[in-house]
Amino acid sequence: MKRFKVTIQYDGLNFYGFQRQIDLRTIQGEIEKVLFRIFKTEVTLHASGRTDAGVHATGQVIHFDVETNMDEKALKRAMNTYLPKDIHVVETALVTSEFHARFSSIKKEYRYFINTGGYEVFSRNHVYQFNRELDIEKIKEASKLFIGKHNFYNFCTNEEGSVKDYIRTIESIEVNVNEGIIEFIIIGDGFLRNMIRMMIGALLEIGLKRKDKEYISRKLGDDFTRSNYKVPGLGLYLTRVYY
Amino acid sequence: MKRFKVTIQYDGLNFYGFQRQIDLRTIQGEIEKVLFRIFKTEVTLHASGRTDAGVHATGQVIHFDVETNMDEKALKRAMNTYLPKDIHVVETALVTSEFHARFSSIKKEYRYFINTGGYEVFSRNHVYQFNRELDIEKIKEASKLFIGKHNFYNFCTNEEGSVKDYIRTIESIEVNVNEGIIEFIIIGDGFLRNMIRMMIGALLEIGLKRKDKEYISRKLGDDFTRSNYKVPGLGLYLTRVYY
Repeated sequence: MKRFKVTIQYDGLNFYGFQRQIDLRTIQGEIEKVLFRIFKTEVTLHASGRTDAGVHATGQVIHFDVETNMDEKALKRAMNTYLPKDIHVVETALVTSEFHARFSSIKKEYRYFINTGGYEVFSRNHVYQFNRELDIEKIKEASKLFIGKHNFYNFCTNEEGSVKDYIRTIESIEVNVNEGIIEFIIIGDGFLRNMIRMMIGALLEIGLKRKDKEYISRKLGDDFTRSNYKVPGLGLYLTRVYY
Repeated sequence: MKRFKVTIQYDGLNFYGFQRQIDLRTIQGEIEKVLFRIFKTEVTLHASGRTDAGVHATGQVIHFDVETNMDEKALKRAMNTYLPKDIHVVETALVTSEFHARFSSIKKEYRYFINTGGYEVFSRNHVYQFNRELDIEKIKEASKLFIGKHNFYNFCTNEEGSVKDYIRTIESIEVNVNEGIIEFIIIGDGFLRNMIRMMIGALLEIGLKRKDKEYISRKLGDDFTRSNYKVPGLGLYLTRVYY
């Protein structure tokens, strides 16, 4: 039995998210179909985590076990031959059974892109078309409040009961601006459902001067009422999983 | 009666080309629907030229005449309110009846993008995924052969009889490379059907060293057999019309 670690990129636009669902096109479903085609047997994959509908990845990591003579190079070629055009294998590696795509992960990097300039047809599914000016200095300043270990209950939409622990640690948030496009680079030890989209939603409210940065301090503190702002999934990318 | 000059961008992916066709989604069809909605009367638009299925634009120019009190700013707002997400008005201007989007045009700029690096899911509909290395110096050298006034019969697919004159003048071809993406910038007084796609197809054959640059000299000369190579429309953009 071999265990393969596979790094993939996908365009989330035409998927109902990552996780396999009956009769719906999902990333896991499409990859498992391809693995069945290659190995003639059902192979179940494990991902570093799910991504929601519309969310993209350039560095998602999965692993799976399979009885095969194939090496990692041949696997990459075979998968890319059969995968649809919106999923692509970037890298394959043979790993030991100690490696687990989800449990071995120590931190993750996500990026989010916002266009504050004029509407642009070509990036409409890959960059959030905000198309309004924002106070970048206020956003940068407020973004620092997220850094560190906090209770992110107010910045997630998990169904009650499914998550026991809302404590997560954000290692860094970088905010870059290039020709009207804001890029957020967020590294943390783990992320709750919609957490990044709600964090950035709150930052946009601050950039519009509708909220001050104390809004974030409050929501990270004892005020347990969830934040109301969430940016669309189409601007979000899982860019790297650290092991 | 007012005449408006309107500069538009569109993502060609989900259109059956520019020209109005019954029951097919075209750029002209979508814009005329929106003009009908705004002005409650049929308005026929004139474009600088057609673009084929899958071809994009960042600087297509159209004009139309309409009886209205609306000024150009209100027109832009109204059009962008009703246009689908893959067409966008960049600029509107009031012009005299002397201006004609097609006949007043003196030259046009097109760009073509090729990815010579690894396959990339996000740009798959907007950059030709060639994914092989090319000899850029050979391409640059050969591209200069197109500059000047030539008979482009061998670099077009016009139905016989519909075009009388195959003489066109290419003013310049620029070849830029940035992180594995080749950008061609081509300016000329006019272009025949599929002309740019066939010119670039020939240049790729030269970049792959399957043809030498004399292939182009021959095809621009007296050898009237058409070139066989054509790159896909999805990498092509009409970027500017000069008046």
